[in-house]
Amino acid sequence: MTVSQEEFRAAMSRLGAAVTLVTTDGSAGRHGITASAVCSVTDSPPTVLVCVNRASGAHQIFKDNGVFCVNVLAPEHRDLAMAFAGKLPPEERFATAVWSTLSSGAPVLEAATVALDCRLDQVTEAGTHSVLFGAVIGTRLAREAEGLVYFNRGFHSLGSSAAPPSAS
Amino acid sequence: MTVSQEEFRAAMSRLGAAVTLVTTDGSAGRHGITASAVCSVTDSPPTVLVCVNRASGAHQIFKDNGVFCVNVLAPEHRDLAMAFAGKLPPEERFATAVWSTLSSGAPVLEAATVALDCRLDQVTEAGTHSVLFGAVIGTRLAREAEGLVYFNRGFHSLGSSAAPPSAS
Repeated sequence: MTVSQEEFRAAMSRLGAAVTLVTTDGSAGRHGITASAVCSVTDSPPTVLVCVNRASGAHQIFKDNGVFCVNVLAPEHRDLAMAFAGKLPPEERFATAVWSTLSSGAPVLEAATVALDCRLDQVTEAGTHSVLFGAVIGTRLAREAEGLVYFNRGFHSLGSSAAPPSAS
Repeated sequence: MTVSQEEFRAAMSRLGAAVTLVTTDGSAGRHGITASAVCSVTDSPPTVLVCVNRASGAHQIFKDNGVFCVNVLAPEHRDLAMAFAGKLPPEERFATAVWSTLSSGAPVLEAATVALDCRLDQVTEAGTHSVLFGAVIGTRLAREAEGLVYFNRGFHSLGSSAAPPSAS
């Protein structure tokens, strides 16, 4: 017995999550998607995970390339988040931003708050989705610590000026 | 080749994440921890995951009880987040808040933004941590949509009054 999809989605709208673009490039081609189901797993060894719908066009490309980059978005990236979440063909998604690479070859968003360059390490299937575990082989931090979070069905900005860290 | 733990931690400080208390109760006892490595996996069937250090006292208790509740915190819960992240014995952690239960029997924080009552469904090991997949068997939403996020090594509040959803 589980809850309905509607009840689950309403509940998930209350779980704030960073908005990221997960990108890949390699023999299977270049692709990228907007993802908020991303989390830190362990620092020993440095590992993150990303949940990807197996019905998405990007899923097999992530697996075939065996590499991906998690680009954590900043407040100014709302349009980019929408572009990578929509119906645009892969190449058009990449057209509106500046990209580079780290060692994996996956696209690194120049203005990302942080980019996590990953080698695909392990896959666990759960219902309609695959959970891709990435060994973090490189990172790049922007100068400013600002973030974009999705919560209560809308975008919210995080920044040290807008909401200072707690003193507790 | 992966990055150093220090480089990984600095990078992870830029990945904003909701702050939650993950709790359990059953034949192995009552326990709970603060966790920000929580994410939505799929709505078919409704599933969330939580990453737990296998060296933590709570880890085996989660597995033995086979149930847990993800209590997503609101801005006023910073002290509670600190209490469940510290060295207090389990029972003292629970002493400062009001709890109830849904069907699993795991403690539900009365004032949680949302509570996700789960049956442990699958476990994947990754380095020092276990990833616990929970089938969501019940939810309870607070009236107000407010959230508490950890980002850039500090707490940040999310609420519809403080940061309205984007119109895009």
